[in-house]
Amino acid sequence: MKKITTQTLNEVPESKEILQTASKNFAGSKKIYLEGSKKEIKVPMREILQTDSLTTNGNQKNKPIYIYDTSGPYTDPDIEIDIETGIPRSRMSWLKNRKINSTQMSLARDGVITEEMEYIAIRENQNIKQNSELKEGRFHKGENFGANIPKIYTPEFVRNEIATGRAVIPANIKHPEIEPMIIGRNFKTKVNANIGNSALSSSIHDEVEKLTWSTRWGADTVMDLSTGKNIHETREWIIRNSPVPIGTVPIYQALEKVNGIAENLSWSAFEETLIEQAEQGVDYFTIHAGVLLRYVPMTAKRVTGIVSRGGSILAKWCLSHHKENFLYTHFEDICKIMKKYDVTFSLGDGLRPGSIADANDEAQFGELKTLGELTSLAWQNDVQTMIEGPGHVPMQLIKENMDKQLDQCAEAPFYTLGPLTTDIAPGYDHITSAIGAAMIGWYGCAMLCYVTPKEHLGLPNKEDVKEGLMAYRIAAHAADLAKGHPSAQIRDNALSQARFEFRWEDQFNLGLDPERAREFHDETLPKDSAKVAHFCSMCGPKFCSMKISQDVRDYAAKQIEEQEEAMKEKAKEFRESGSKIYSKI
Amino acid sequence: MKKITTQTLNEVPESKEILQTASKNFAGSKKIYLEGSKKEIKVPMREILQTDSLTTNGNQKNKPIYIYDTSGPYTDPDIEIDIETGIPRSRMSWLKNRKINSTQMSLARDGVITEEMEYIAIRENQNIKQNSELKEGRFHKGENFGANIPKIYTPEFVRNEIATGRAVIPANIKHPEIEPMIIGRNFKTKVNANIGNSALSSSIHDEVEKLTWSTRWGADTVMDLSTGKNIHETREWIIRNSPVPIGTVPIYQALEKVNGIAENLSWSAFEETLIEQAEQGVDYFTIHAGVLLRYVPMTAKRVTGIVSRGGSILAKWCLSHHKENFLYTHFEDICKIMKKYDVTFSLGDGLRPGSIADANDEAQFGELKTLGELTSLAWQNDVQTMIEGPGHVPMQLIKENMDKQLDQCAEAPFYTLGPLTTDIAPGYDHITSAIGAAMIGWYGCAMLCYVTPKEHLGLPNKEDVKEGLMAYRIAAHAADLAKGHPSAQIRDNALSQARFEFRWEDQFNLGLDPERAREFHDETLPKDSAKVAHFCSMCGPKFCSMKISQDVRDYAAKQIEEQEEAMKEKAKEFRESGSKIYSKI
Repeated sequence: MKKITTQTLNEVPESKEILQTASKNFAGSKKIYLEGSKKEIKVPMREILQTDSLTTNGNQKNKPIYIYDTSGPYTDPDIEIDIETGIPRSRMSWLKNRKINSTQMSLARDGVITEEMEYIAIRENQNIKQNSELKEGRFHKGENFGANIPKIYTPEFVRNEIATGRAVIPANIKHPEIEPMIIGRNFKTKVNANIGNSALSSSIHDEVEKLTWSTRWGADTVMDLSTGKNIHETREWIIRNSPVPIGTVPIYQALEKVNGIAENLSWSAFEETLIEQAEQGVDYFTIHAGVLLRYVPMTAKRVTGIVSRGGSILAKWCLSHHKENFLYTHFEDICKIMKKYDVTFSLGDGLRPGSIADANDEAQFGELKTLGELTSLAWQNDVQTMIEGPGHVPMQLIKENMDKQLDQCAEAPFYTLGPLTTDIAPGYDHITSAIGAAMIGWYGCAMLCYVTPKEHLGLPNKEDVKEGLMAYRIAAHAADLAKGHPSAQIRDNALSQARFEFRWEDQFNLGLDPERAREFHDETLPKDSAKVAHFCSMCGPKFCSMKISQDVRDYAAKQIEEQEEAMKEKAKEFRESGSKIYSKI
Repeated sequence: MKKITTQTLNEVPESKEILQTASKNFAGSKKIYLEGSKKEIKVPMREILQTDSLTTNGNQKNKPIYIYDTSGPYTDPDIEIDIETGIPRSRMSWLKNRKINSTQMSLARDGVITEEMEYIAIRENQNIKQNSELKEGRFHKGENFGANIPKIYTPEFVRNEIATGRAVIPANIKHPEIEPMIIGRNFKTKVNANIGNSALSSSIHDEVEKLTWSTRWGADTVMDLSTGKNIHETREWIIRNSPVPIGTVPIYQALEKVNGIAENLSWSAFEETLIEQAEQGVDYFTIHAGVLLRYVPMTAKRVTGIVSRGGSILAKWCLSHHKENFLYTHFEDICKIMKKYDVTFSLGDGLRPGSIADANDEAQFGELKTLGELTSLAWQNDVQTMIEGPGHVPMQLIKENMDKQLDQCAEAPFYTLGPLTTDIAPGYDHITSAIGAAMIGWYGCAMLCYVTPKEHLGLPNKEDVKEGLMAYRIAAHAADLAKGHPSAQIRDNALSQARFEFRWEDQFNLGLDPERAREFHDETLPKDSAKVAHFCSMCGPKFCSMKISQDVRDYAAKQIEEQEEAMKEKAKEFRESGSKIYSKI
């Protein structure tokens, strides 16, 4: 590990604390692995064990549920981790045999199924075969707006999605620590968490803690948006300890290199930064190459102008020099660097709206069109590409964003921030935006960038990161149910079944946040005996609607029995009367 | 005030505390009244004052924003309130001159515009004339799915909506304390908060505190779902102190009267309860008259059976007696009681789904059809009616609920609980359901019943009530923006404008929860000077995207100036060259 400064070494004692939290498995859960065709393909899953159902015929076993696991090797008790050296580099052996300048996209186009692709097929299925034996209740059909979601994922399906550009596998060849994952609308909807210090606050230690905390609570990728000092070291620590792809916005560091003066940015300073970060192992770069000089004045009449940091840096540069954005003019040069490391483009929406009023305007859609053109250039260079999206959009205008993006960017994956569906709730923007995120996820957005309750107000702390992630995992899962991801409803049904049968522990453990569920339950009914009680605090012990439902089942069963009895009786009469259908004829 | 028991009197000292919280106005806000055609029609509004904008031409005044105010007389410093006697009965003088057995619906059908209707027209406009002078930025057109939302509300528009049954004004003639409000899809989307003690917990004092707390945070109606002891006294305290309509589920109290044994319920016990509650002033009753015997067995194969408490009580009664639901057979008798007091029906969805798996099934839609038939019966009796809806519904099945309801219930207002869009997040069901609530509100749902983070786990405390209300006011407002309520976007734009100009205090005060916004801001930048600082904690003082946007505006302005200069130059040349268009011809 490079450049460990005295400052960072001083923080080592605290790393124990980070590991303690990160390695704790959720109650009732166990880490397991599903093996692929080679033994190096070991796909992690979280197995949630369930207690028995108490039926009139005695105890009945309930099978475990398998869920997608982003927590990384931390939750594997057999792996010892040292934050200073980083987590195991398990992808190393796969990378050895690859040709220089081959990307997941070039390989897919050549018909090669990479280890990453096979891994992802297994991961997306979430052990669907075993889970599907649990099917209870009705399963709903999704409405997927023309997407192509299979009943079961195969390595070939994954390969084809990568070859067409409909999905990306952000996986820098210099980041062998990652557990491969895919971003595309025909897969599970993914969630990104932003971390990173700012000029005002937080330390390297804080950021590594936020990383492991984020992946623990379900972040599929993490963006390091650091802007202050020690950008390089912070990133090194984050990458070496990250089981998920890491994204950055390289212009932030480039700006630091020119002392924060946007006018002084140059292609060479930027190029140097790109190579430095690619070399470290960053998996995707936000590149604001669509902020063209001619779009900038279109933002002058907006209520909130340009709110993207990258967008405003480039707007300032363009205006100062009265020249076209150097990221646009050097786009092919950028592609060459990206290709070498297989870094994925996340084409930034520097002109995204910062308020409801500014949604879906000419500046935003002008830039989107340019991003579409750049997508095709990136694809010509075999560089994987996704497109960033807004921002602030009222509900009735969300679908237009998705439809335009699919159309103009040839179905490249969309990756949106929210969108926030109203501006009136500072302090609750994880909720204003979870509404928009769930909807755009349903419409086909591939990854949702989380928003924390601190949005617009301050820097998120650990608790805010968790709140943001919970809201976004809800949005992503609601989207998966609606679009019909084959494994989504299994978990809902298992939890509902547990709820109906008063298996409280199972209900907690099957949820997104077992700790909070347990804590809330215990506030009203703290006794341990209440967790096996066949009633809840809403109706109390005397009256219980769940109990009555059991009576209904008994009644319905009896009714069917009586009907069958009556049928038999009728059948007997019929036979005895000589089996004539119309006796009067 | 009737029946103040020793127990309740003992709590009087604490009432000071309730009043202290309830009477505190939000920072920067002032209560004002808009007068109608008579001076007794005084419609409360919250006026939010704004600070000046700092422009290059010096300070520029910003007009105040007016918003809908549910906090009641508590926030009027000129009104002294004694919880023991209740709040002023301001509607008394209007009621004096009304004929016995006249309801808002019968009056509307007779062409009468009641004081309530005029009051509501003023209230729904939210001082739109003054607010509209503030229009900055683009205003989006709503997509309202065939609703009829006017640009400005008139008393005649309100009357017509009530006459057709498309909206209701829950206003028992024995509840003169309320500030009239309307529930209908052509108006502002409303939010209900449930309070009420259970067999296990909470006191009368707690419930009155929850009432004033709920209306402070924007509850448009409150349901008292008490089930334990002191049901009557709790309700009396709530009604006498409530500026918003109060709803109840009378079967809960009827069940207490027969010691919790559903089989022992009878029409006479129920009738007595109805009259008792109507006499106290309850504004709307949830009546589960659609739970028909033949629908009950349809729930046997569900994952979560019958989850509505009222639904399961009646299912049990039907099964035990093998008779049709007595609320159905006595529906006309119920109508007569409702009409006498102008109590509004909230036809309960006793068979609503309790899980994603059970959404939109034959039991649920069977009951909905019956509710449609009962609506037409209620209307024949001039009784105002709304319809309750689910529950748990994945996103792709939400619109079907709304469309079926409008179709089968002849556009009577829909009033839904959530719906929750996934079952996997106990502890966060205010979020899982705010997603569904925002969507169904957009599609045309008139009132959203809140869900708190404690749903399925325990009884909500004060903080949970607030969290639930915040999530639901976000959902309702997002819906109003999307469907195009004429006054909705004004507040978003004002807040965004304040945000863009770093008017931090205005940004806090214009939000749904000024206290939390301020607190979050101060966590990162606690100094008072930071609240006038022209930067925020996200980017720090050195670099600011908002600052750059100002440069863009200056650039665009200069560009236009230069263009105009060039045009003038060209025009001059043109004139000088003899004003010929094609000089070469």
